[in-house]
Amino acid sequence: MKKLLLASTSTLFGANYLDYLLDDLAVFFKDIKTITFIPFARPGGIPHDTYTKIAATAFAKIDKEVVGLHSFSNKEEGIANAEAFFCGGGNTFLLVEQLYSFSILEVLKAKIESGTPYMGTSAGSNIAGISMQTTNDMPIVYPPSFKTMQLVPFNINAHYLDPIPNSTHNGETRETRIKEFHCFNNTPVVGLREGSYLLVTNSQIRLMGTHTARIFKANQRAYETSEIEF
Amino acid sequence: MKKLLLASTSTLFGANYLDYLLDDLAVFFKDIKTITFIPFARPGGIPHDTYTKIAATAFAKIDKEVVGLHSFSNKEEGIANAEAFFCGGGNTFLLVEQLYSFSILEVLKAKIESGTPYMGTSAGSNIAGISMQTTNDMPIVYPPSFKTMQLVPFNINAHYLDPIPNSTHNGETRETRIKEFHCFNNTPVVGLREGSYLLVTNSQIRLMGTHTARIFKANQRAYETSEIEF
Repeated sequence: MKKLLLASTSTLFGANYLDYLLDDLAVFFKDIKTITFIPFARPGGIPHDTYTKIAATAFAKIDKEVVGLHSFSNKEEGIANAEAFFCGGGNTFLLVEQLYSFSILEVLKAKIESGTPYMGTSAGSNIAGISMQTTNDMPIVYPPSFKTMQLVPFNINAHYLDPIPNSTHNGETRETRIKEFHCFNNTPVVGLREGSYLLVTNSQIRLMGTHTARIFKANQRAYETSEIEF
Repeated sequence: MKKLLLASTSTLFGANYLDYLLDDLAVFFKDIKTITFIPFARPGGIPHDTYTKIAATAFAKIDKEVVGLHSFSNKEEGIANAEAFFCGGGNTFLLVEQLYSFSILEVLKAKIESGTPYMGTSAGSNIAGISMQTTNDMPIVYPPSFKTMQLVPFNINAHYLDPIPNSTHNGETRETRIKEFHCFNNTPVVGLREGSYLLVTNSQIRLMGTHTARIFKANQRAYETSEIEF
């Protein structure tokens, strides 16, 4: 019984943290009292405690308590005892490097696969995929591997952006970058626009929110869909 | 006698490949007959031969010949015999992974440090810096290290983009990403806008082209400058 909620972004323009998701989070975390928050993607500016408080403030609106995984000296124990997880966004390289350096990537994966609900936003969603190789983030640290939790049979591109019409900029579009990924990898990629999220129950995947998703597969033309099937 | 030309981009909007640089390239490569082209950043779509022909077509306009480094079965020998180098853009992860897998990063660095002129655009400029950790590219392959040639005492952010005013997108701005880099690294970063390039002669660095550069240092506010000094 795998149960995931994977969102493109935590925050919509002009809105509060997680606000657009709260109604669905009340259902997703229905029988959960305390959510274990994974703050490790956040590169700086604010400490893990502060980031955890931001999550706690949002979840208080639906009567959930939040505890930061960083507060456990034994992180494996923190994971083992968790009722549910939320992994927030930031930098995916940093998040993956931290999960490997604490040796908890496999532990977390196993706990989620045994049925503990997992919610991710942005970098937190990326790590549910096969690899972190379709992140948009800057490689500010060097992780020992790009392999992630492989809870779903594809990669996510969070904050998916359509090409900007009439752009005079010469940097690659997001679509071009994902096509380049497919020169070396066969993993399908779900381009998830801000406001979209995936609800995963075992092998059933539902696309939620306001947009279609853009699907990229090796050697195929990208296409729009409202039904995710692999 | 180190001699580098490091450009943000190969191509300006609506113009031909390298066109905006050709007058200066005629001077930079004044005594050079044949330029050794490094095509390894290009992730696919076109083979190395085709990419090399694109470079050759541009350089023919200033009477230079171009030979692709990929055409040498012994790449070290190709480097040892080169009169000058041009490394084109593409994906920096791929370029760095290829340089390591051919074991030529240090060989190329030594040859350039001994006075062989080196020109880079985009990914080709990134690898002249301390590390590739301020690339904008997607991690489509896993290089054995992020360390690059360290020919200049800073990192480059090619295709530097100012924040888009009134954007409703929640992805990080370029400036935010570089600030995050500085949470973990002290290397200064030169944000090089399209149309800008650096001319390096030993330790003297001149900013050329139409824009100021944006300089990012750890624990300092970013600033604009037309004079690069470190």
